[in-house]
Amino acid sequence: MDDRIHQHASVLVDWSARITAGDNVVVNVAEGAHNLAVAVADVLGERGASLVMTYNSAEVSRAYLRGHETDFEPAPAHERALYDAADSVLILGGDRNTTATADVSGDTKQAAAQANKQIREARMSTDWVSTVHPTRALAQQAGMSYTQYQDFVYDAILRDWETLAEEMERLKRCLDDGSELRVVSDNGETDLTMSIEHRTAVNSAASVAYDSHNLPSGEVFTAPVETTVSGTVQFDVPMVIRDTRIRDAELTFEDGTVVDYDATAGVETLAQILNTDPGARRLGEVGIGMNRGIDQITNKILFDEKMGDTVHFAVGRAYDACLPANESGNESAVHVDLITDIGSGAQIEIDDEIIQRNGRFKWDPEFDPSGV
Amino acid sequence: MDDRIHQHASVLVDWSARITAGDNVVVNVAEGAHNLAVAVADVLGERGASLVMTYNSAEVSRAYLRGHETDFEPAPAHERALYDAADSVLILGGDRNTTATADVSGDTKQAAAQANKQIREARMSTDWVSTVHPTRALAQQAGMSYTQYQDFVYDAILRDWETLAEEMERLKRCLDDGSELRVVSDNGETDLTMSIEHRTAVNSAASVAYDSHNLPSGEVFTAPVETTVSGTVQFDVPMVIRDTRIRDAELTFEDGTVVDYDATAGVETLAQILNTDPGARRLGEVGIGMNRGIDQITNKILFDEKMGDTVHFAVGRAYDACLPANESGNESAVHVDLITDIGSGAQIEIDDEIIQRNGRFKWDPEFDPSGV
Repeated sequence: MDDRIHQHASVLVDWSARITAGDNVVVNVAEGAHNLAVAVADVLGERGASLVMTYNSAEVSRAYLRGHETDFEPAPAHERALYDAADSVLILGGDRNTTATADVSGDTKQAAAQANKQIREARMSTDWVSTVHPTRALAQQAGMSYTQYQDFVYDAILRDWETLAEEMERLKRCLDDGSELRVVSDNGETDLTMSIEHRTAVNSAASVAYDSHNLPSGEVFTAPVETTVSGTVQFDVPMVIRDTRIRDAELTFEDGTVVDYDATAGVETLAQILNTDPGARRLGEVGIGMNRGIDQITNKILFDEKMGDTVHFAVGRAYDACLPANESGNESAVHVDLITDIGSGAQIEIDDEIIQRNGRFKWDPEFDPSGV
Repeated sequence: MDDRIHQHASVLVDWSARITAGDNVVVNVAEGAHNLAVAVADVLGERGASLVMTYNSAEVSRAYLRGHETDFEPAPAHERALYDAADSVLILGGDRNTTATADVSGDTKQAAAQANKQIREARMSTDWVSTVHPTRALAQQAGMSYTQYQDFVYDAILRDWETLAEEMERLKRCLDDGSELRVVSDNGETDLTMSIEHRTAVNSAASVAYDSHNLPSGEVFTAPVETTVSGTVQFDVPMVIRDTRIRDAELTFEDGTVVDYDATAGVETLAQILNTDPGARRLGEVGIGMNRGIDQITNKILFDEKMGDTVHFAVGRAYDACLPANESGNESAVHVDLITDIGSGAQIEIDDEIIQRNGRFKWDPEFDPSGV
């Protein structure tokens, strides 16, 4: 077995989920994640944790959902009991076919997701971590060979997380202490400002110890004060959203609301998203990608939004973790991330101080605030 | 997908496990049983049951067991909670390598099995059914091509269970009403008698409605009064027991105890079994195979002991279900089945009446009590 699979398992169990002797762990295995499951079981055995392994097969789900004719039971007692008594849940993704449920109706999927809410919440109230094992289907979705995709995934996952967490902590402090955030590009396509006063940034360091539940992670994000967003942003990183490629999306904000939008591809999908509800025209999140192991888009948001040298803005729902205790942030049924490359000819400013220029933070030796 | 997989799923869910709307079902999927899991999910969806699917991978178990260094937790709370709240457990066997745990020490396996006792009991207190999906590894163990093995498995499983259950009920009544059972072969190799007075036979009709938990099943078995077994039996059906081929084993009983034994192959293993404890030298079970879909040995006891035209005797532990309420039967740490072909030149007698001759029961049109 590829030694990187073992390393992945160790990072997941030790750094991300912080599992120790006696922990009751549920490991959720996708169809294509068998080899990672074996490596994870090895580490869990070494740590003296107890293990229940569940099988998360898209083909099984498709069959069950298509067969089902009546209402879905909201919280089956046995499933609820399993997660209520679990300390940690490790979700090992790894599709064998990313479109395996394409012929299940949207209504059925929505009804099942709705019914599954309590179970999802029970799972989310454990120390859960979601990761992914590289499969051929995911390589295909990323437009890569299998070997190329494996290299990509392990570059993203096998980081020096401790050092990265420290660097991200610096950025978090800048955001927490700052009042106004501005992202601006030299070519004039992007110039967006927003208040981030009294908001708390999340250092998403791929560990439950940082309230971060994705492996890989590597982003610092916060919620803007949604009524203060003003200016224009161009998303020059192409993405596939709702099965549609969106290219060069551009949003213009006035008083926090999108007043103009465009794209060179996928503009109908963009419109559909923005018209979901009033909150869908306001920003819920601004995140700065800091995982330099991720250097290209692979059409999987788990990776895309953490790409180094990028900033992403999400229209829609804000995360509670970023908000003051008694305040509710932007509300919406959607949360859609769009990404801008800021690796060259762009900068991030906080209260008029340049904190990143051409992808280099002010604490980097290569930082040059006047560089081109 | 082979339509027989769908038929298998329907038999399992409807005939064997009797699952209805609202049931909380755990489906335990072996590495090689994915396709059966998909078909079972389809039927469970149709019935409106709720589903948790667990992954039973021998390679995962091997990794976990080899990694583990301390004592095993006897009953992890999350696993216990899952089974306590389950109505049914469907165990879908299907190894990809029947020797996948060959390099786990016997001590470790035994310690894990010992710790797992409460979980096993919680599972056994549901309406559980164990079945198997044909895999290449199981075909290999049976010495068959994959296609040949698939045909074999579905011949065994896709029976007219209702009709077979009625026929087996007739045999059960003969055994329940009888006092003395004799199995005798024309060639004189086998002539064994035993009391079955006050013992209750089990009609193992592959359904929880018959307290039968294997699919396929198709045997009627009871427990002899262990001190009354007398005579000799030759087991002419070769079997692999404890990784050793045993051929032409022969046991001679006096006053219920084996006083002489032999075999043309595997005699050391036979000795090892018989010397486990005093109960290992007495009979715990006599069973009559009635599944005519099973016509050869495949080195998997789930199938072997149900083969039509055979009788099997198990040395060791007796099943409680066969015993009078306040009586405990033969006690032993082992329960090892050995099989004799009685399809020709042999008969079964109850209280001196021939109830089967040359594989035909007294109610069969072809029954000929004096046939050769």
